[in-house]
Order: sequence, then C-alpha cells, then structure tokens
Amino acid sequence: MNNNPTNVILGGKEYDTFTEPPAQMELERAKTQFKVRDVTNFLTGSEQETLLTERIMREIERDPVLNVAGDYDADLPTKRRQAVERIGALARYLPKDSEKEAILRGQLHGIVDMGTRTRIAVHYGLFMGAIRGSGTKEQYDYWVAKGAATLHKFYGCFAMTELGHGSNVAGLETTATLDKDTDEFIINTPNSGATKWWIGGAAHSATHTACLARLIVDGKDYGVKIFIVQLRDLNSHSLLNGIAIGDIGKKMGRDAIDNGWIQFTDVRIPRQNMLMRYDRVSRDGEVTTSELAQLTYGALLSGRVTMIAESHLLSARFLTIALRYACIRRQFGAVPDKPETKLIDYPYHQRRLLPLLAYTYAMKMGADEAQQQYNSSFGALLKLNPVKDAEKFAVATADLKALFASSAGMKAFTTWAAAKIIDECRQACGGHGYSGYNGFGQAYADWVVQCTWEGDNNVLCLSMGRSLIQSCIAMRKKKGHVGKSVEYLQRRDELQNARVDNKPLTDPAVLITAWEKVACEAINRATDSFIKLTQEGLSPDQAFEELSQQRFECARIHTRKHLITSFYARISKAKARVKPHLTVLANLFAVWSIEEDSGLFLREGCFEPAEMDEITALVDELCCEAREQVIGFTDAFNLSDFFINAPIGRFDGDAYKHYMDEVKAANNPRNTHAPYYETKLRPFLFRPDEDEEICDLDE
Amino acid sequence: MNNNPTNVILGGKEYDTFTEPPAQMELERAKTQFKVRDVTNFLTGSEQETLLTERIMREIERDPVLNVAGDYDADLPTKRRQAVERIGALARYLPKDSEKEAILRGQLHGIVDMGTRTRIAVHYGLFMGAIRGSGTKEQYDYWVAKGAATLHKFYGCFAMTELGHGSNVAGLETTATLDKDTDEFIINTPNSGATKWWIGGAAHSATHTACLARLIVDGKDYGVKIFIVQLRDLNSHSLLNGIAIGDIGKKMGRDAIDNGWIQFTDVRIPRQNMLMRYDRVSRDGEVTTSELAQLTYGALLSGRVTMIAESHLLSARFLTIALRYACIRRQFGAVPDKPETKLIDYPYHQRRLLPLLAYTYAMKMGADEAQQQYNSSFGALLKLNPVKDAEKFAVATADLKALFASSAGMKAFTTWAAAKIIDECRQACGGHGYSGYNGFGQAYADWVVQCTWEGDNNVLCLSMGRSLIQSCIAMRKKKGHVGKSVEYLQRRDELQNARVDNKPLTDPAVLITAWEKVACEAINRATDSFIKLTQEGLSPDQAFEELSQQRFECARIHTRKHLITSFYARISKAKARVKPHLTVLANLFAVWSIEEDSGLFLREGCFEPAEMDEITALVDELCCEAREQVIGFTDAFNLSDFFINAPIGRFDGDAYKHYMDEVKAANNPRNTHAPYYETKLRPFLFRPDEDEEICDLDE
Repeated sequence: MNNNPTNVILGGKEYDTFTEPPAQMELERAKTQFKVRDVTNFLTGSEQETLLTERIMREIERDPVLNVAGDYDADLPTKRRQAVERIGALARYLPKDSEKEAILRGQLHGIVDMGTRTRIAVHYGLFMGAIRGSGTKEQYDYWVAKGAATLHKFYGCFAMTELGHGSNVAGLETTATLDKDTDEFIINTPNSGATKWWIGGAAHSATHTACLARLIVDGKDYGVKIFIVQLRDLNSHSLLNGIAIGDIGKKMGRDAIDNGWIQFTDVRIPRQNMLMRYDRVSRDGEVTTSELAQLTYGALLSGRVTMIAESHLLSARFLTIALRYACIRRQFGAVPDKPETKLIDYPYHQRRLLPLLAYTYAMKMGADEAQQQYNSSFGALLKLNPVKDAEKFAVATADLKALFASSAGMKAFTTWAAAKIIDECRQACGGHGYSGYNGFGQAYADWVVQCTWEGDNNVLCLSMGRSLIQSCIAMRKKKGHVGKSVEYLQRRDELQNARVDNKPLTDPAVLITAWEKVACEAINRATDSFIKLTQEGLSPDQAFEELSQQRFECARIHTRKHLITSFYARISKAKARVKPHLTVLANLFAVWSIEEDSGLFLREGCFEPAEMDEITALVDELCCEAREQVIGFTDAFNLSDFFINAPIGRFDGDAYKHYMDEVKAANNPRNTHAPYYETKLRPFLFRPDEDEEICDLDE
Repeated sequence: MNNNPTNVILGGKEYDTFTEPPAQMELERAKTQFKVRDVTNFLTGSEQETLLTERIMREIERDPVLNVAGDYDADLPTKRRQAVERIGALARYLPKDSEKEAILRGQLHGIVDMGTRTRIAVHYGLFMGAIRGSGTKEQYDYWVAKGAATLHKFYGCFAMTELGHGSNVAGLETTATLDKDTDEFIINTPNSGATKWWIGGAAHSATHTACLARLIVDGKDYGVKIFIVQLRDLNSHSLLNGIAIGDIGKKMGRDAIDNGWIQFTDVRIPRQNMLMRYDRVSRDGEVTTSELAQLTYGALLSGRVTMIAESHLLSARFLTIALRYACIRRQFGAVPDKPETKLIDYPYHQRRLLPLLAYTYAMKMGADEAQQQYNSSFGALLKLNPVKDAEKFAVATADLKALFASSAGMKAFTTWAAAKIIDECRQACGGHGYSGYNGFGQAYADWVVQCTWEGDNNVLCLSMGRSLIQSCIAMRKKKGHVGKSVEYLQRRDELQNARVDNKPLTDPAVLITAWEKVACEAINRATDSFIKLTQEGLSPDQAFEELSQQRFECARIHTRKHLITSFYARISKAKARVKPHLTVLANLFAVWSIEEDSGLFLREGCFEPAEMDEITALVDELCCEAREQVIGFTDAFNLSDFFINAPIGRFDGDAYKHYMDEVKAANNPRNTHAPYYETKLRPFLFRPDEDEEICDLDE
C-alpha cells in the first residue's frame, strides 16, 4: 500500500524519496538505443584511444597519493603540501610516458585536481617548453643534464607576467643587460611595477626560472627574450643574492600552486643562459635576431591547445552530474497527490542543459583538431633547420601562425563555455549544487583563470577578429595563402544568394550553409567598414580600434560556425549505427545557436521574423529527442565516479545516499557542539544584561 | 629625462609603472562635471538617507570585531568562530535600530561579510519573521519573552528545505501529527529523503527551529504549516531526545554560517507551538484554515526584496574596483616606445563595463520600489485584522500578491546580473582579479547562492511568466484589478502602431516606447499561444508547460523594461544639474539592452536590419560619454575603502602599492622556505634514483 503520496511504484515495488533514485536511474539508462561504447569511441577517436584513456584513468584513480578523498575540505596549506606529494607520484610516470600519454595524463588528472596539474605543468609545460622551443639543442641537453627533465634537485618556473604588465609581453620592463667584460647578463627589476608577479612555483618550489626580460646591449633595447636564472641554492634551497621572492598567497582557486613574486637586483647569469634558438648574442656582444623569434611563444601555444581539451573534459564532468541528478530529482508537479515531476521532464530544464551537452560534444572535435594541427606544425618546426630546410620550415611556420589565430577563438569560447556550463549545471542542481562536496564551487574557482591566463579571452578574440579581417582583405586581393578554416569567405556571392528559410532545418547541409552565410557576411561587413575607415584617413590600428565590437563579433560567430561544421564533419565519418543519435545533438547545437543569435539571422535575412517561432519549436523538439537518451549520452563521456567526484552525480544514481554518506564522513555527527562553543557561543548566549543606570546628578 | 619608454610625464613630473597610478587617478577624478554628493543623494534618495547610510557604515567600519582584515585568508573553522563574535557585535546595535536601520545595517554589513550576514539573518529574518508573520500576537510575545528577540540563551533557525525537496514547499514530507490525548504534535521525518537539509544555524547555534511540516489530524493531511520545535537544551546546548543534527560542512561559499541537517524522530511539542495566525487547530482537533495562509511566506518575501538591494550594492562594489583599476592600468598600445594605453580607453573595455555600470544604477531604483511596496503592503497587513478591517486587508493582500509576482523577476534578474557583474569585473582586472585579496573569488562564491535560494531564479521567472500571461488574459476580459506594472499591456494597439525607427534614440520617451512595444508584444503573443493551446484541448498547466521558453522570455523582457522605465522615472524627479549626466547612463542602459536583444527588436519591426549598425554606433558613443566621468559615477556609490576591500580598487588609485603591501602583510616574505620543505619537498627533490636491475635467471 502506498502510504505516502510522494512514494513511487516502479515494477510493482514501492520506493520513497530516498530509495527511488537508483531504481529510476536504471530505467533511464535502459532507454539508451545506442551502444555507449560506440559513442565513447566516437569521442576519443577509436577503441584504441579509449583503452589508452582508461588505462591512464585507472592509474590515476588507484594511486593512493592521487586519491582526492577529503580534497574539498582541504585548506591552502594542506593543498600546497599535498601537491608536492602528488607531483612525486606523477613524476614517476612522466619519464616513461610518450608525449601523447603525458598530455593525456595531465588533462585527465586536471579534471579532479587543477591546482596540482598547474603546478607540475608550469615546470614541464612552460619552463621545459621554453627551453625546448627557444633553446638550442645544446642548451636543452645542458639543462636536462642538470636534472630539469626529471625534477632531481631542480624545479623550473616561468617568469613572464609582471605586476604592471600582463598580456602584452612586449611591454615587460625587467632588463637583461649584457656585461661584455664578464660575459654575463645582469637581470634587474627597474621599478616595483616590474616585479614578476603570479609566477607559479616561485614561492616555494623553483630553483630556476625562465625569465622574460628586455635584452639590452650597449644601451640598445632588443626587446624581450628568455633567460634562465637560478633563484635558489640547489642544496639549501635558500634564495640567492639579489633574488627576493614572496608568496602571492590566497587566490580565487588553484591554491595547490605556490604562485610568487620575484624581484631581481643586479643578478648576474652567464651569457649562455639566454635561450638562443632564434635570437643570439655573441661573446663580443653582436646581436643577431630572427623573424622566427615570435615562435618563441610556442610554449604558450601548447597550453592554449590543451585548454580546449580541458574545456571539453570539465564540461563533460559537470553535465554528467547535472543530467544524472535531473533524472532522479523530483520537484513540483501538475497533479496534486501524485509524485512530483522529474527535473529532466521539464521543457525548461531540458533547454538549460541539453544544448550545452551538444556544445560539449562539439568542443571535443575542436580540441582534437587543434591538437593535431599543433603536433604537425610545432613538431615539424622543432625537427627542421630554418636554413637547410627553408621551404618546409616556411610551411610549418605558416601553419603555426594560422593555428595561433584559430586557436585564439577556440581557447576563448570553449573556456568561457566551460565556465558557463559549470555554473549552469550548478544552478540546475539547486541547493545541492552549492554543497562543497558536489564540486561545482571548487571547480568554478579553479577553472575560470583559464579565461584570463595564456591570453586573456577578450584580447584573444579581438586579435582573432583582426586576423579574420586581414584574411578577408588578403583573399579579396588574392594575395598569399589563407588557412583552410577561412576559405568559406571566398564564397560570399554564393552564400549571399543561398536560401535557407525554405529548407528543412534538420538537414546538416542547410544548417552549415546558414552559419557560413552569417559568418561570411559579418566578417565581410567588418572588412568593408575597415576599408572605409582607412580610406577616410584612419590608420589601420585606429580603424581596428574603432571596430572593436565588430571584431569581437567576427571571432565569436566564426568560432561558433567552426565548431558546428567540425561536429558535422566528424559525424560524417562515424559508424552508421551512431550517426542518427549524434546528428540529434549536432542539430540541437546548430539550431539552438541560431535561436540564441536570432538578431544575426534576422539581420542577414536568413529567416522571416515569424519563422523564429518555428526555430524555437524545433529546439524544443530536439531537446525532447536528446532527453530520451540523456543517460547514454553522458555515460559515453566515460568518466568514472572518481573523476565525477560528486555524490549526486554517481553512476548508480543513488544520489541522496552517497551525498548524505559523504557529508557525514566529512563532518562527524557525533560532534554535536561547535568547537568554539565554550569559548565563543556560550559566553554570547549567556551574556548578562548590562545595567542601564544613569548617574544621578544633583542639579 | 625619461629613461624608460614606459614612463609617463604628468604635470612635468616623471612617473614609473608603480608610481603613476595615484597621479592618474587624480586626473581622472578631476574630469567629473557633477557634484558627486548630488548623485549619491540621487541614489540613496536624499541627503538625509545618505547621512544615515554613512553613520551606519562608520559604525561597522570602526568596530574592531567587524573588521575584515585577514578575512580572505580565513578557513572555514575560523569563519564560523569569527561569525559568532560578529553576531555579538551586531546584536548590540539591533535592539536599538529602527526596522529601517536594521535592514540597512544588514545590507551594508553584507557587502563585506555575506556569511555572517546570513547567519544573523536566519534568526532575525526567517525565524523571527515566521513568528511575526504567521504567529498570533500572543505567540510572538511568548517567544520574545523566551529570549528570541535579543538572542539570550535562544537562537532560532528555519527548517524548510529537505534533502529531496526544495522550492516546492507544498511537497515537503516532514509530518506534524496531532496527538489529541496529550494535546501535542509529534514531529517526524518519515524517510531519509525528508531530512531537513541546508538549515542555516542548525549545525552549531540553534536552540529552536521554525519547522515546516505537514499538519496531520485524524489521518487527514492539511498541508504544510509552521511549528516551533526546540532542538537543544537551553543550558547544556545538547541535542534533545529525538533530534539528530549534523553539520552540512563545506559549501561553495558563506562558510561562516553553520548549515546543518535535522532528522526528527517522534519529537513531541505542545499544540500551542503551531503558528496560528491564519490556520488553527483547537484543543479537540478542529482545524480551521484560512485562504490567507499563503501570506505565511511573507517572511521569505522580505528576503527577496532585500536581495534586489544587495544586488545593487555588490555590483556597485565590484564595478568601483574594476573601473578604478581600468583608469590606472595600462596594457598594449598602438605607438611603439610610448606608454601603453589605459584599459578604460579601449572601446571594448568600455563596452564590457559601462553598460553594467548603468545597469547597477537602474537596479537601485527597482530595489527602492520593491522595498517601498513591501513596507506598505506587509506592514499594513500585520496591523490589520482580517475580519474587522476586511476591506483594507483585501487591498493589502492584493498588493502583496502583486509584489510576489513582480519581485520574482526583479530578484532573479538582479541577482543574476550581480553574479555576472562580479565575474565580468574580475575578468576585466585580468590576473589581479584572480588574487584572493581583491575579493572577487570570495564574493562570487558567497554571492551566487542568491540565484538559488528563496526561490530558484529559473522557477521564479517561469512563475512570473505565468502570472504575466494571466494578467494579460484578465486584462482582455477586463476582469479584476491588474497591477500598475502591467498596465501597459492594455495599450497593445497603440504600441503596435508606434514608430521608433525614425526618432532619436537618445530621447527617453522613444526608448520607453520601444521597450514597452516589445514587452507588450512578447506577452500578448505568449498569451495568444496559451489561448490557442487550451482551445486545442490542453489543460492550462500543460499549456503553460509547453510555453516554458516563452514564459521565461516574457519575465525577462518585462523586467528589463521595468528597470528602464523606473530609471527614467526617478531621473525625471532628480535635480536639474545632475539630470543630463544620469540620462547618459539611462540611455546607455536602454540602448545597449536593445543591441543585446536585437533579435527581439528586429522581429517586432522596431528597426530595419541596417539600423542595428546605428544602434551599435550609439552604444559606442554613449560609452565614450560615460567613460569621461567614470570615476565620478563610481565615487557616487559612496563605498569607502573598507567596503571596497580590494587594494586594486582603493579610492586613491595607488593600486599596485596597496596590493603589494597587502600580499606582503598576509604572506611574510621572510618565510623563504615552504612550511613543508623538510618533510615533503626536500625528500622529493633529493630522492635517490632507484636501481633498475633485473634478476639474472640462470636459464
């Protein structure tokens, strides 16, 4: 007998609020019409890639030191200390990993511990990356022999940003002045504003830094180069003379990494410590520079590429949590005395999360593409000799430059999207999203710095917008080779005449055309404005400045178009049996994006105003379709409970039980009095009233 | 002589990166063409209000216990303990405060310490509010005599939410069953899903709770009522029999408040502990219910109203920081060997922040309006007798219901806007926005729960959308009185014919008409769809569900329109000398909102597609105008450095110096080795290599 109107009967058994979730999850999971493994392999690329990922995940998950239990309650000192233990554990794997394995290991570990990930990535990614990318072969070998590759006695950091200078590397003020007499550089911080700031690893760990400083020879400023500077004595770990370092302390997130500030006071380093792959300074002070020196920032580019992949992974984690929770959580209901409705069955809840699920799938395609482009161009570059292999070198350089532009928008919009997804998923879990133990708060605080570092997202978008306009001009003049990703700009006439409003909006070809049309038009229109402004007498820089909003929009629309077309391109190569399911997601992403940008599509005359209602109806419809297999789509992300790290998002759906268990494990209910009860609370509650007497003046 | 190309000459003096900011701030401040005090008084309402605010701010700022130094480094245990001390300090003021002063004191203190604010507000706002709003006069007096009003031996909490039940109060499962024999209620948690969850103050502080539970008499369920249940022994503070309480532990933010869970196992309370202002249970178990019982949630409404004001205050704080920083920070520049450009001079930076500044001004108008409506309706209600003053009571009830609807959208969109503003301001400060000491991270983590509690924002918007459609139907049928805020819906014909595209978009009347036109059309169109769906056979609930997206949009557009028109209405009453300056902000808010919603305006035919370029140009232009006096506009918020609590946002502009000082004060640079150096770091860096020998099998 059903005693409680909120109780639910499933398969003849009665469940209450607390016991229903796992049974409900089974039912939801059973709706999946595809083989989850097929979709996982679609996402990773192949069964082989899936197995590799699973092997590394297992290694992380089973390692006692990397276990994240208790992390949500850890304070800054604990996180800092623990990070060193974890780096120790990871350092045992890294020398044996292939480059691909190392990248994957870092990205996967980063899903649950972004702080430690950064702390190790600063050494391997930034410091070693700088030496590998900007040092000569001899320099690389020298520092590896010193212990840099294995972290023996040696720990590197990357001193780029200054207190008063961030994204504009060219504006850094720290100086490296050649002293020809001693064959040394003198590294100096000219004023407090030039204090190196935010330097990860500097506060506690680093023995050396790759320091970005202005090369000064005979009073002439040659701009910013990279110099290896020792910071601490290798044996005592004490600061060397002329080095002042302090801890930056509390941050919004990523407390596991010891960011610090550094001031240099006439610190002398051998001339050989300048990284000289491209720019060189000889014994007698002759400076030879190379146009290729800009490749020096290749070390940063790999970070940017990996951030696209991380955007996908973090989004996958939190969407899995929010969508699983939506399948077991009930709230409100249209019929009195009947069980409440499951969140996932509310059209508005579907609209909040399912387009973001589709977006997350699309991100993976973008991430893979960028990684592959990086591997082929930067990998080639390092193997080639600029003089002997001049031709191949030029191609690789051009490819890398193209990647610089295209990855800018991808980095910006995927990191923003991941931040939005973490936040929207948190809100979709209501109050329980605010619990520390479901991970949203920690992840958001850790995540969002991705929108700022290695190129502030807004700056990246403006610079990408500039490059799109420049590509458009080059194309009109038929000058030089433009990247594949902007070739559609050449089809302006064709796209302008393309009709999409009379065609089915579930046909990928129609959706691709619609997006190409608006992106092409937006960029061409911005280009027209640019040409007009320069003809009116503005310098190119002034004209670009005037067109800031338009440049941003160009980057935004182009990147969205790119993600949509990449998603369809990958689906076209997928197994036939998963194609229809994936196409639902891709269509949802493309159509929802049109609805979101209705102003753009109305403006280009793609649709009549009244047709926007049909688009809204189509989004609703696609959401309904995607909703049916939502557990399958999230299971396909293949993140185990360890990587989910949120009791309300567990695989078995037993959300309330796991959640209550975790809260009790972290906060022993036998502690019934506040730790400060005797010292603070009791004295307050039992404070005596103060007498309010007034002295009686005998007047 | 200018040695460094990045150095700047101002008034004949040379400044470097570190020393320039305060000099630059003086120049920026001098651009203000209005009397800052005039605009402050415009915001507060009058000089008298400004003085009151300043008095309370001073009391908070100078109180040693309320001092926030060190807060950013405080961990959860410290925050919890400290909160009790601060409640002690605040409790000395509260008995002497008028209601208005108490509200203001709470809101102002909340700017810098949201956690403690919540902890005290749970008692005074929710617990006392429940007794005041739902208890009889005798009940109120009884609990006050027990110590509830002054927190003597007594601490109240509010047990509404359950583990499996949030926003839908009607779905709560905790039961209160009348035992006629003993004249008691038995409070019980029927299953673990009905565990009271998130109860602020329960874990450590509360002696009593206002518990929402289903009233059961003779097996009949009368729905959810409020019962006062004692939790802890007043003398020992130990849990009473049948009460199990645990600490909820770590949250995303607001760690100062001790949220807990509560399970009741057949806890007996006197029948008189049910709050019986509207619903009553007599000695012999006779239940009399009142339609007015829904007013019972008036206690929550006051929270909602105050959240609109808090949205303004938090936004004001972080915009002040980001805009002051933008006036002193340089980054990139068009001319080599010249100082970089100030952030505020980038058109895109202006666009990111200045419309939000205008939005923040508008929020204040909405907040004042809601507070005033609440005071007049709820205040009246408490003083009136439902029977004797039936007529006046009916008016006050209708007003309160109208406020329920209108405040829903205002709460939702202003709390979301404040979250967005904190986040956008953080990003606008680049890396320094990520420092713990500039407050963004802490404030965001503390703030965002406002989007979830006391009515999840999405749920509120959907319910507001429903109420807008219902008002529209009532209006068409000319049935009943509709609120003033929706009267414009009656002017559909007039608005449909109104032209705005041939009129100057700097004329407030034109902008108001444009917004009324699109809001009126959106709501009427949703109403048409609703009527059509019900005529096709759907129930009203089904039809509303189908129209979720449209309902959300109605709430969104109506609320934006409301904020815009309220802003203009208040400006019309402002002093003549500040009017033109405020009008720049109001126009910026209105025109930028049009640009953001271009799809809507194109759809309604307000503008031709090509005219959107003019709107973009006008936003640029208004940003330029607002930029000139940006320091004046933020100074007018009148937040002292204590309330700003971010070194990069200080009044004097000496950002880098204050920031570096604060980082050094919190992290002593004399600690040059990590605290875990000997135990963890050194053993890792100096780990011996393991021999990789393989035993030699004699095969």
